[in-house]
Amino acid sequence: MGENIEKLKEHLRRISKFESAVSLLHWDLETYMPKNASNKRAEIIGEIAGYAFKEFTSEKTHELLQKAESEAQTIEDKALIRVTKKEYEKSKKIPPELFIEFQIETSKAQKAWENAKNEDNYKLFEPHLEKIVTLSREIADHLGYEENRYDALLDNYEPGIKTKELLNIIPKLRNSLINLLEKIENADKPKKDILNGKFEISKQKILSEYILKKLNYDFKSGRLDLSEHPFTITISHNDVRITTKYDENDIKKGLFGTIHECGHALYELGIPENLRGLPIGDGASMGIHESQSRFWENIIGRSLSFWKYFYPKLTEIFPHFSNIPLKEFWRGINTVEKSLIRVEADEVTYNLHIMLRFEIEESLINDKIKVSDLPDVWNKKMEEYIGIKPNSYKDGVLQDIHWAHGTFGYFPSYMLGNLYAAQIFNTIQKDLPNIESKIENGEFIDILNWLREKIHSKGKIYEPQDLIYQVTGERLNPNYFVDYLNSKYAKVYNL
Amino acid sequence: MGENIEKLKEHLRRISKFESAVSLLHWDLETYMPKNASNKRAEIIGEIAGYAFKEFTSEKTHELLQKAESEAQTIEDKALIRVTKKEYEKSKKIPPELFIEFQIETSKAQKAWENAKNEDNYKLFEPHLEKIVTLSREIADHLGYEENRYDALLDNYEPGIKTKELLNIIPKLRNSLINLLEKIENADKPKKDILNGKFEISKQKILSEYILKKLNYDFKSGRLDLSEHPFTITISHNDVRITTKYDENDIKKGLFGTIHECGHALYELGIPENLRGLPIGDGASMGIHESQSRFWENIIGRSLSFWKYFYPKLTEIFPHFSNIPLKEFWRGINTVEKSLIRVEADEVTYNLHIMLRFEIEESLINDKIKVSDLPDVWNKKMEEYIGIKPNSYKDGVLQDIHWAHGTFGYFPSYMLGNLYAAQIFNTIQKDLPNIESKIENGEFIDILNWLREKIHSKGKIYEPQDLIYQVTGERLNPNYFVDYLNSKYAKVYNL
Repeated sequence: MGENIEKLKEHLRRISKFESAVSLLHWDLETYMPKNASNKRAEIIGEIAGYAFKEFTSEKTHELLQKAESEAQTIEDKALIRVTKKEYEKSKKIPPELFIEFQIETSKAQKAWENAKNEDNYKLFEPHLEKIVTLSREIADHLGYEENRYDALLDNYEPGIKTKELLNIIPKLRNSLINLLEKIENADKPKKDILNGKFEISKQKILSEYILKKLNYDFKSGRLDLSEHPFTITISHNDVRITTKYDENDIKKGLFGTIHECGHALYELGIPENLRGLPIGDGASMGIHESQSRFWENIIGRSLSFWKYFYPKLTEIFPHFSNIPLKEFWRGINTVEKSLIRVEADEVTYNLHIMLRFEIEESLINDKIKVSDLPDVWNKKMEEYIGIKPNSYKDGVLQDIHWAHGTFGYFPSYMLGNLYAAQIFNTIQKDLPNIESKIENGEFIDILNWLREKIHSKGKIYEPQDLIYQVTGERLNPNYFVDYLNSKYAKVYNL
Repeated sequence: MGENIEKLKEHLRRISKFESAVSLLHWDLETYMPKNASNKRAEIIGEIAGYAFKEFTSEKTHELLQKAESEAQTIEDKALIRVTKKEYEKSKKIPPELFIEFQIETSKAQKAWENAKNEDNYKLFEPHLEKIVTLSREIADHLGYEENRYDALLDNYEPGIKTKELLNIIPKLRNSLINLLEKIENADKPKKDILNGKFEISKQKILSEYILKKLNYDFKSGRLDLSEHPFTITISHNDVRITTKYDENDIKKGLFGTIHECGHALYELGIPENLRGLPIGDGASMGIHESQSRFWENIIGRSLSFWKYFYPKLTEIFPHFSNIPLKEFWRGINTVEKSLIRVEADEVTYNLHIMLRFEIEESLINDKIKVSDLPDVWNKKMEEYIGIKPNSYKDGVLQDIHWAHGTFGYFPSYMLGNLYAAQIFNTIQKDLPNIESKIENGEFIDILNWLREKIHSKGKIYEPQDLIYQVTGERLNPNYFVDYLNSKYAKVYNL
């Protein structure tokens, strides 16, 4: 009874142990590895990741899947078969030569992108991007799709949602955001320079750790370290680590960056042990993952209630804030601005940055625009959506590494994360009517338990739209996000 | 030409990448791993180490070895075949069931040992030790030997040396040490309490890093971290890490512990890249490894010349030393004492602690004494060799974890390390006549380059006795150690 399912699980869990080693090798590479070790490290990671991939795509996986399929009775086991089969079949659809070529080209492109960005010269990156777009189209064709070639790539990050749906959502959402942005532009600005100052790194660290503990991030199952780019990484069950980066001149970066990663980490830590090591022992999608990080970073972390609780601690650590009223501080961390750089964008403009990227990606993959026209397309859309235009490539089309990585289909996750987060928040507020006072008292465990029960504990058992439906009673509905923003920013800007 | 040798190397280097991952998983376990991850971590290490072992003991290794053997022309390649073949054949001699039983029993024994030590109750450990001794005898019998069963185990750590040779060396060495110890007992004692004080950990760290840099430990190819027990670990070429442990009340522990590990690390960092990842890309033996750590820790690190250079830095970091004359400090760090605990023993008594352990091990493995009689045997030998007797098991027979690990045959390495170090030092002094003034000026690179050329760069190409012969013109000769001690301690104690 279930004997082959057990064998399949054992096989997959064995593979996941090699993936755990790869994760630790990566984490170490980004945090503590001595500089001179980098070449060898790349070889070691390549060998072990390659072995794990070979084992997953082996005939053994295929056989075990076939034998186990009829034994699957529970929801978990059925999902296991479905998700594993899908990943297995996907990996078989791409010819190995194409896969290798893609790895080589993206690895070259990353260096070229760095170079091009440093030199502010799009031409240095263009031929690489050309190649990657061509290969990505080929990959999409191998993976297959019904309506839109971009669907094949989107499915890698957000299974169950189609390009058409995103294209349908966007115009109305964009208009709402632009409307709000215009209102804000005409309103009284919060005093932004109140956030200026020198923030000693060691003190920022104390603040971060204090907040992480209050948010129930368990340091016995995780760590906080420094790296060039903040990230969350799961090494194994009970080992989910965060990194952050502090800026001595900008307290917001390290602070909200840490809370953002904490959201990812709480999700990973909430995935049950019995799912871990299996393809269903993961976040439901990149979009759902991002919903958790954005929920804690923005909806909780930039709320007035949150700072009613944490402001005394903040002023204790950085005494110059004691001259600044809480409400002014709160308005300061919620300043909305037309800006060029996505990663520095506020809640209102952020999704506009994403839409622009998504539309460009979709056009590129479907051969509707040329790689050589990209800077022009970018600048035109920036003007149209956000109302400003970059004066350099590095503040424009060259700002993100994603296309050099070849991760076409990923950008929509950022937008979806924001939309899901607001939709989920709407439901939480109904289930936990005293949520605001809980936050004001620094009590976050009810919120976390709610997320654990409804989302984290489900791992990847459900596709994101099914999960969101179960949790909120609806599929993706961007209205919640628009309502959340309108209501919040009416207060921030006294609209 | 050499095609199969190349294939063999590729195969072995591939396996070594998995071993690199295991090393990193270990390092992380001892330094930064979140506490709750420990169970999973053991499983991950077990899986990957097991895979590497399986690959090494596979038919493929056997075939490649056979094909490559006739192609070996260079000294390196011949050594590669010899060392690989020996390791392969050894691994094949032990039945898998016995290997697994040994793993399980030693893993249980470690917990039992901890418990027994905490409760100071030998009876809690006795049945486990009984089992491990029995299994070790079986393993030795499978490995095979000519004269003495202990030879089979000794060969795991110090190939090429026999039990008989050690048993022959010991009586004279012991007498010399006891004679010196008696002379010292009757001499004027250095003022030992001059080393007392509170030593802030952060300052000890600065001192350690300062010394490591001066000793040419390259922080771009290594790191210094904290762990419960200090160790050196090689992750890959250009990645050799040290850990240490500071004691706020005893500056000696962290200081000399760090220099000790630095000696191991300099050895590992000196192994050439083309040998790394191969069975010959390692230290020649545990004894030779220990010679490097003890050389830097004791012969260099506890010399008056060394402190002539570093004392100003020490007094800068810990100003209370400025009231203490350099020579008194130097006498303080070289205090000789009859003591119960091996790891705290001085240069004179240390080898007496080892002899006792070696003789007990040899008797146990050859069934000449009973495990139940061990506490009595221990106490009697302590009285005879060092002249004091423990009042508890934890200060006596239960003090070391080694037997719980089942590493019978390892203890002699500590003694051999001291003997080799003095013998090597004797030769260095001839080759570098101005060595003392170099040390006094904080110039260690000539010494390191000498060690690199003569020892480190050779990896495991030569068996330890051949290497020592090449380096010093003689096989192991304990007289150099006795001369070194007599000459040094005549000065320390004004004998």
